[in-house]
Amino acid sequence: MKNHVLFLCCCFVVHTASNAQSTTISGFSNADAQAQLSIEKQFDQNLNAANIGNTIKQLSSHPHHIGSAGGKAVADSIYNRFKSYGWEVRIDTYHVLFPTPKTRLLQMTAPTTYKALLKEPALKEDATSGQQDQLPTYNAWSADGDVTAGLIFVNYGLPEDYDMLDRMGVSVKGKIVIAKYGHSWRGIKPKVAQEHGALGCIIYSDPADDGYFAGDVYPKGAFKNEYGVQRGSVMDMPVYPGDPLTPNVGATANAQRIERSEAANLLKIPVLPISYHDAQPLLKALEGPVAPAAWHGGLPFAYHIGGGTTQVHLKLAFNWDIVPCYNVIAAIKGSQYPDEWIVRGNHHDAWVNGANDPISGIAAMLEEAKSIGDMLKSGWRPKRTLVYCAWDGEEPALLGSTEWVEDHLKELQQKAVVYINSDGNARGFLNAGGSPALQQMVNEVAATVTDPQTGVSVLKRRLAKETADATTTKAKEEALAKKEMELGALGSGSDFSPFLQFAGIPSLNIEYGGEDAGGDYHSIYDSYDNYRRFKDPSFQYGVALAQTIGRVALRQADAQQLPFYYQDFYKDVNEYTNQLITLANDMRESTALETELLKDSIYTLAADTAKHLLPPQPKTAVPYFDFAPLQNAVAHLQKTTDSLHQVLVKMNDANTSDVLNKTLYQAEQQLLLPEGLPRRGWYKHAVYAPGFYTGYGVKTLPGIREAVEQRNWTEAQAQIQLAADAIDRLNNYLQQIHD
Amino acid sequence: MKNHVLFLCCCFVVHTASNAQSTTISGFSNADAQAQLSIEKQFDQNLNAANIGNTIKQLSSHPHHIGSAGGKAVADSIYNRFKSYGWEVRIDTYHVLFPTPKTRLLQMTAPTTYKALLKEPALKEDATSGQQDQLPTYNAWSADGDVTAGLIFVNYGLPEDYDMLDRMGVSVKGKIVIAKYGHSWRGIKPKVAQEHGALGCIIYSDPADDGYFAGDVYPKGAFKNEYGVQRGSVMDMPVYPGDPLTPNVGATANAQRIERSEAANLLKIPVLPISYHDAQPLLKALEGPVAPAAWHGGLPFAYHIGGGTTQVHLKLAFNWDIVPCYNVIAAIKGSQYPDEWIVRGNHHDAWVNGANDPISGIAAMLEEAKSIGDMLKSGWRPKRTLVYCAWDGEEPALLGSTEWVEDHLKELQQKAVVYINSDGNARGFLNAGGSPALQQMVNEVAATVTDPQTGVSVLKRRLAKETADATTTKAKEEALAKKEMELGALGSGSDFSPFLQFAGIPSLNIEYGGEDAGGDYHSIYDSYDNYRRFKDPSFQYGVALAQTIGRVALRQADAQQLPFYYQDFYKDVNEYTNQLITLANDMRESTALETELLKDSIYTLAADTAKHLLPPQPKTAVPYFDFAPLQNAVAHLQKTTDSLHQVLVKMNDANTSDVLNKTLYQAEQQLLLPEGLPRRGWYKHAVYAPGFYTGYGVKTLPGIREAVEQRNWTEAQAQIQLAADAIDRLNNYLQQIHD
Repeated sequence: MKNHVLFLCCCFVVHTASNAQSTTISGFSNADAQAQLSIEKQFDQNLNAANIGNTIKQLSSHPHHIGSAGGKAVADSIYNRFKSYGWEVRIDTYHVLFPTPKTRLLQMTAPTTYKALLKEPALKEDATSGQQDQLPTYNAWSADGDVTAGLIFVNYGLPEDYDMLDRMGVSVKGKIVIAKYGHSWRGIKPKVAQEHGALGCIIYSDPADDGYFAGDVYPKGAFKNEYGVQRGSVMDMPVYPGDPLTPNVGATANAQRIERSEAANLLKIPVLPISYHDAQPLLKALEGPVAPAAWHGGLPFAYHIGGGTTQVHLKLAFNWDIVPCYNVIAAIKGSQYPDEWIVRGNHHDAWVNGANDPISGIAAMLEEAKSIGDMLKSGWRPKRTLVYCAWDGEEPALLGSTEWVEDHLKELQQKAVVYINSDGNARGFLNAGGSPALQQMVNEVAATVTDPQTGVSVLKRRLAKETADATTTKAKEEALAKKEMELGALGSGSDFSPFLQFAGIPSLNIEYGGEDAGGDYHSIYDSYDNYRRFKDPSFQYGVALAQTIGRVALRQADAQQLPFYYQDFYKDVNEYTNQLITLANDMRESTALETELLKDSIYTLAADTAKHLLPPQPKTAVPYFDFAPLQNAVAHLQKTTDSLHQVLVKMNDANTSDVLNKTLYQAEQQLLLPEGLPRRGWYKHAVYAPGFYTGYGVKTLPGIREAVEQRNWTEAQAQIQLAADAIDRLNNYLQQIHD
Repeated sequence: MKNHVLFLCCCFVVHTASNAQSTTISGFSNADAQAQLSIEKQFDQNLNAANIGNTIKQLSSHPHHIGSAGGKAVADSIYNRFKSYGWEVRIDTYHVLFPTPKTRLLQMTAPTTYKALLKEPALKEDATSGQQDQLPTYNAWSADGDVTAGLIFVNYGLPEDYDMLDRMGVSVKGKIVIAKYGHSWRGIKPKVAQEHGALGCIIYSDPADDGYFAGDVYPKGAFKNEYGVQRGSVMDMPVYPGDPLTPNVGATANAQRIERSEAANLLKIPVLPISYHDAQPLLKALEGPVAPAAWHGGLPFAYHIGGGTTQVHLKLAFNWDIVPCYNVIAAIKGSQYPDEWIVRGNHHDAWVNGANDPISGIAAMLEEAKSIGDMLKSGWRPKRTLVYCAWDGEEPALLGSTEWVEDHLKELQQKAVVYINSDGNARGFLNAGGSPALQQMVNEVAATVTDPQTGVSVLKRRLAKETADATTTKAKEEALAKKEMELGALGSGSDFSPFLQFAGIPSLNIEYGGEDAGGDYHSIYDSYDNYRRFKDPSFQYGVALAQTIGRVALRQADAQQLPFYYQDFYKDVNEYTNQLITLANDMRESTALETELLKDSIYTLAADTAKHLLPPQPKTAVPYFDFAPLQNAVAHLQKTTDSLHQVLVKMNDANTSDVLNKTLYQAEQQLLLPEGLPRRGWYKHAVYAPGFYTGYGVKTLPGIREAVEQRNWTEAQAQIQLAADAIDRLNNYLQQIHD
């Protein structure tokens, strides 16, 4: 299916809310809240942990990456399940580039020889680990390449690591680098290596970060054994995600495509992930300076930087195929507001079997859908339309979700109330990130879901964890006083990204976890056998996730007045603004200090002369920025959101108009920057983006923050104005409500 | 020699200082300062790096622990050197208990068997490593014992580690514990194990702390190889050091001795140090819970706590011999104040060859003595008496120095102006600790000694290092603004302890280091071959140490007005007082918080239920203490020391009396507590002691601080008064000067 017409026609209903503010559920009248609670009870009764376990077992029974027969089978199975639950369902197909390995060779050629295994072995304790049709260990979007060069160890391969290499007098130009996984999204490592002139990049899982340092290794324990490899994408998704050949538009069959060589998010160098078994002989052979203490990993020898005779041969070639990308889209039309959509999604493609990533999330989503289907049969219908999406191709580049959002941009911006994402799930604590206006609603839901292990609400357990984890008495006291959990700001790494950052649709990302640590991520060992031992043995957290997201979806679907509270957005953006001012001040002070230290030869005098560590390069002074436009816009936002709150409170006694609801849920689009972020215009949100050098990790007020961090003073000042303009657009927009 | 009469008769000279404050050396008139600088130039010219290298090579050429033929030969060689330099010299002999191994056996008996090597192998790259007469790897003062029991891994074996084991539900009662070296003095580990009911204690060097994590291992690099073992004392020296059979008195031949079983500083359980080669099979065999992340070391597997089937057999027996302890005491009688002694010392005994520890310090001391001897020949004499001491038996328990100080207590308290200690030396930065009144003098000296590698003063380089090492911008700015280095407070671990903490004699401990990291400490690999590669290849830091301590000694010897500045003591004790008030407040707040957390079940709710971690035990609330007596005493001290400073400044224009000088150098004795510290009365200093649970690490205002830390509230209040009394004694004493 492609270029399909979306299900629902546009109609407008002004609906009545009475006394909503005094009910126990925001956005509902007292009476309606009682009804909603009874619906939630019914919803809960239809959820079944064993069923979730069976779904995980079935859908992870074979490898099912995008473009594979297994992937098609999983999409079909999900389609059939939705259908059997009574949902309208279709498969939206796109046609996307997806590279798979043709040749993979890594050999050390000097001072000794070693041929890397590049293979995770089958284990008798893991039933699916020996299956055919597994994708080999590789990084998708590596360039084709055949290079032989000296090897340099670059720690985590981040910009600051290259600053240190500069101080050590080591260049990676013309070399192959070997970097540890961790401390950033993996795609940053080859990107930064390429920026520094490296010819190739090897990424390995060090046992200090992902292996025996954390506990017993698989299959005895959950952690990465010596042969485990983390597959994964190395597309430069901070530039844009989705099909690299169709930026900004859906990858329909007839879409206009650019040449692969024109795609700004594709690497020019080959990249390969390896196990610590394969890394050990290479690292052990390295000569040159001993690595700085903080760079040392968990292998049993002194880590060196290289620069001696150690030479490796890296040869990689890929099938650069266009493959079908099957998004399963299921819906239940709303009874009152069919053109207001509650969109909920989880991807279905995996690198291999993916019992945890993504099937544990899909299983919860299907359980929600089944329960809702059961409720349908009893005559209930949601007031707004529910749209449940199982995305394909998330792993390589958020392919399915991005192409779908690009393809349906205008319709989504008009109709999508919220996008609720999950991407796997396990035992532990509620984690939720997303648009701050939704924070109160999420907290209300979290207070009603019971933690399977402790019997308290998942909100209470989450707050207890925050208190226990706080590291100072003061921080613990503050955490203990908290009654609400905060929504984390969203960067990237899952399918919420196109909704939030390209389309400006309020988004949430929700999961349980924290007691599921292990080394299975993107490995053949992310299997049902692993999941049922180490992730969520009773599958009760699958039920908890279904309860949590189900309530969020059902409350959004049925609320008289949509529970959006922009005062929470003001609080966050005010904090981000203050952070930026502090960041600039701190950088100004530390730069001035460093200039002084260089003038006084402090680095030279303090250095061990036997180690030949150069002083850092001098940096330009940090100017004072005019933050006033942003500060004024944020101050204005406080007034606007306070007034809005008063209006909404009053309106509970009167009719809440659907125009108001539409205004509330479409408000976040005001924050989209017309031109997007500098050098990556796909990212349009003025407040949230994945970091250009963090990958998944969020940068708030990213235009300003990254300009300051990257010492681009002119751009920083310009971005302050653009962010202020975006917030003022929101101010003016929200002002309409009380005008 | 024993019960010797000390060299020098008492005489009193009132000597004239003119305008001392305006010269460039504190305590000297301008003219005298010029003369002193010329003497220092002469002193420097006689120092020779190659000679220091030769001394290190010669004196470390054979094993020379206390009681050995090699030890006697080294003492004789030092004696002869002093003699040849023109010093009066004698050997003061004591008779001390010193255990050496008779039986050493460590075997794992279940689940598999392993017999520990307990042997550091000879290396062809290390000429002395294969010699006979090496002391085997052992911990002196281990009890005899033959125990077989289950094995428990206790991290560093400190009280907080046992708190965590309690939370894990693990008891060491009736077990043998295995602890990592580090994070405290080694003797704390078996002491705490014994307090918790363990039957035996194994201490090993983990490669994360002392091995390949730091760099290449010996002999390729300097760091501990898999077979290296740290010998060392595990006497409970925080109770009292020296011969355990003769507490408080010199261990002369006829001294009254207690029974070994009565000695409060001897362990009841066997203790053995092992290499990481020997530790690996034991640790790998451990079952039970995975160790907390922070406990994990550098061996390539997941560390477990134990509690399963792993069983070890530890059998140790010792020769409990009384051996001669040879202190070499050399002197040059002062021309004007022969009964005022500048005492300088460094021990000569080693665990094995001890090129670094202690011979590099002895070599610098002998080079000072030779240079001074050369000056004597040209007609110069010091005004005060120089007493240079090479101590025996420091390694097992500060035996030589402690017995000497106990034996000569009254005379030393009358005559000793200062005790200046060193204990090895290497490439790097000046480190100096000691009595704060000497801080200004040490800084003046440090400003005149040139760093061999950078050509700036050792003071400037040291301050540059402090600035570079500061971790925040604010800390770096503060460090950059500093013009003076601070003297660290002295705990224990070398021969200054009896002088400072038993006798109240102003003390200094001075060394260079910080660019000499390695794994040779108390190993057979602390050899000349190691030293010349990794410690101070040019021996120029030996010259720098000789220059530094030589200047300190010569300035103290020749000053008209002794350069003691008690304002610096006030500053430090004021800071310690504020630290204690903060400590009590912080503990009160954190205890109240923890009580709240327990009441709210925060630990239980936040814990991973699969890990069965119990909440911590409830703690009693921290009361408010009356710090007023101490605060008043310290406030008074500020006035007293300010007035004293005015008196001393004025006196520079008049005659400085020798009575004044005596008053100045004997002042620190006012700080001695008549009864000493609780449960360890040997330690008499109210301001400085080694920590009861740190061993070497200092505790300032120890009576108060440890009572608070150990939650003994009654004792804390009592100790506040005793410390205040001590400071008030000093106030009244110093008041005499300006009365």
